[in-house]
Amino acid sequence: MDLQQIGVHHPKIKQLRSIQKNTAPNPKKLFIAEGLWAHNLLLNTDTHIDSFFWCPEAAYGNEAVKRSEEIAARAGRAYQISDKTLARISERDRPDGLISIAQLPLWDPIDVRFDRSALVMVADGMEIPGNLGTLVRTLDACNADCLVLTNRRTRLTHPKVFRASQGMILTMPVVEFDQPEDAVAWLQRNSFDVYLADANNAKNYRNYRYADRRTAFVLGSERYGIPKPWYEAGCESVSVPMLGSADSLNVSISAAVLLFEARAQKDHW
Amino acid sequence: MDLQQIGVHHPKIKQLRSIQKNTAPNPKKLFIAEGLWAHNLLLNTDTHIDSFFWCPEAAYGNEAVKRSEEIAARAGRAYQISDKTLARISERDRPDGLISIAQLPLWDPIDVRFDRSALVMVADGMEIPGNLGTLVRTLDACNADCLVLTNRRTRLTHPKVFRASQGMILTMPVVEFDQPEDAVAWLQRNSFDVYLADANNAKNYRNYRYADRRTAFVLGSERYGIPKPWYEAGCESVSVPMLGSADSLNVSISAAVLLFEARAQKDHW
Repeated sequence: MDLQQIGVHHPKIKQLRSIQKNTAPNPKKLFIAEGLWAHNLLLNTDTHIDSFFWCPEAAYGNEAVKRSEEIAARAGRAYQISDKTLARISERDRPDGLISIAQLPLWDPIDVRFDRSALVMVADGMEIPGNLGTLVRTLDACNADCLVLTNRRTRLTHPKVFRASQGMILTMPVVEFDQPEDAVAWLQRNSFDVYLADANNAKNYRNYRYADRRTAFVLGSERYGIPKPWYEAGCESVSVPMLGSADSLNVSISAAVLLFEARAQKDHW
Repeated sequence: MDLQQIGVHHPKIKQLRSIQKNTAPNPKKLFIAEGLWAHNLLLNTDTHIDSFFWCPEAAYGNEAVKRSEEIAARAGRAYQISDKTLARISERDRPDGLISIAQLPLWDPIDVRFDRSALVMVADGMEIPGNLGTLVRTLDACNADCLVLTNRRTRLTHPKVFRASQGMILTMPVVEFDQPEDAVAWLQRNSFDVYLADANNAKNYRNYRYADRRTAFVLGSERYGIPKPWYEAGCESVSVPMLGSADSLNVSISAAVLLFEARAQKDHW
């Protein structure tokens, strides 16, 4: 491959480092994909690759070389970089020569279509990127239709979201609403039964019927729970009983228990 | 309080640092508890506190001072340390003056008693301390009887186990067997139905009956799965279906789905 060689002062490298720093606004949802595993995921999905940076000296084997050609062919721009430049931009202990600026899919709520037994998770105010990523991976596993974010406090482009989701953030639809009220209205328009995951005095999650109807669960933030507008909208409350001495369940764990119960009922397991 | 003042060269401080380094054998299961939250947990359980180190200058408020007296009264030894010494031994950004060497409870398999509908989780070869801690927290939440470890690869005394378990490692019984065969024999002697959590072609976890009998699930390691001796013992296999495109579910998530299904059946939710 004959690629333009660039160094640390090139504007595209500066853009990459700015995305890594995660401080400037990022409306196009650009994220950094690094390494062979992540690049295989990019190739297996129709992710838009904005720019690809290739460092042949750092590559481990033939697979990396082969993939680099496929990625360069698909990327909007492709550059060659030196070992030294790679060391400056890599966030891994042992970089393997493949690093890209790619774009998360942008989902508009009006583009998401639901069948009559759809399954959706809402996360309101979730703060920990790893929890968000794990949630996306669980949504993928139980074949949910989409993730809805309200009061978003962590970026989907955070590298921990990508990692914890095992890359499923590239395929699971994610729609965002600034205000819970807008999400409520959208869910009601789409005829969803909405259940607030609330540990206090709520009805046991096994005592609802989820089959043959659309189901949305709402998870609150790790610290503050579910904000008022959700309660004011007259949603049901649901709880996963905590039988032990700890006062709460990891939010990813509650989500998994709720989602798999709904899936099991919907699919008549 | 009038406590002996000691510095970084005192043998007990050296012992504390050696436990933190986590390289020497640790047969008494000593671990480091740091901060007000952890010390409240020590006081609320009957955890043996080997040594307590108190740095009054670093304390944030009256609660810390009050707790320090209760802990000093219960600890085998109690010392005062300077701000400087605390800074050398603390693993927190903002230490709050309370740090102890404490002992995890030591459980002997023959001391664990089961009722006729007991629920147990076996983790074989689990490598990631955070996963082990989350598992303990989930076991607490679903009122499981104990955690069984075989081919243990991570220490229960790792600070991430304590944190991720929310301190439940102090109360959830944990028994260990070097060989899976010994765990199988113990489970069979105690009349457990043993189910291997296996993603490949196993029967759906909803298609077994767990009520009114003793249930043990076996989780394999994140990398290698469940080793052969478990299969050779003629255990059943069980799976949580993965309906998406990711090839595996986070091990803590599978565990939660299995455990809550068994608990729901046993308690007739």
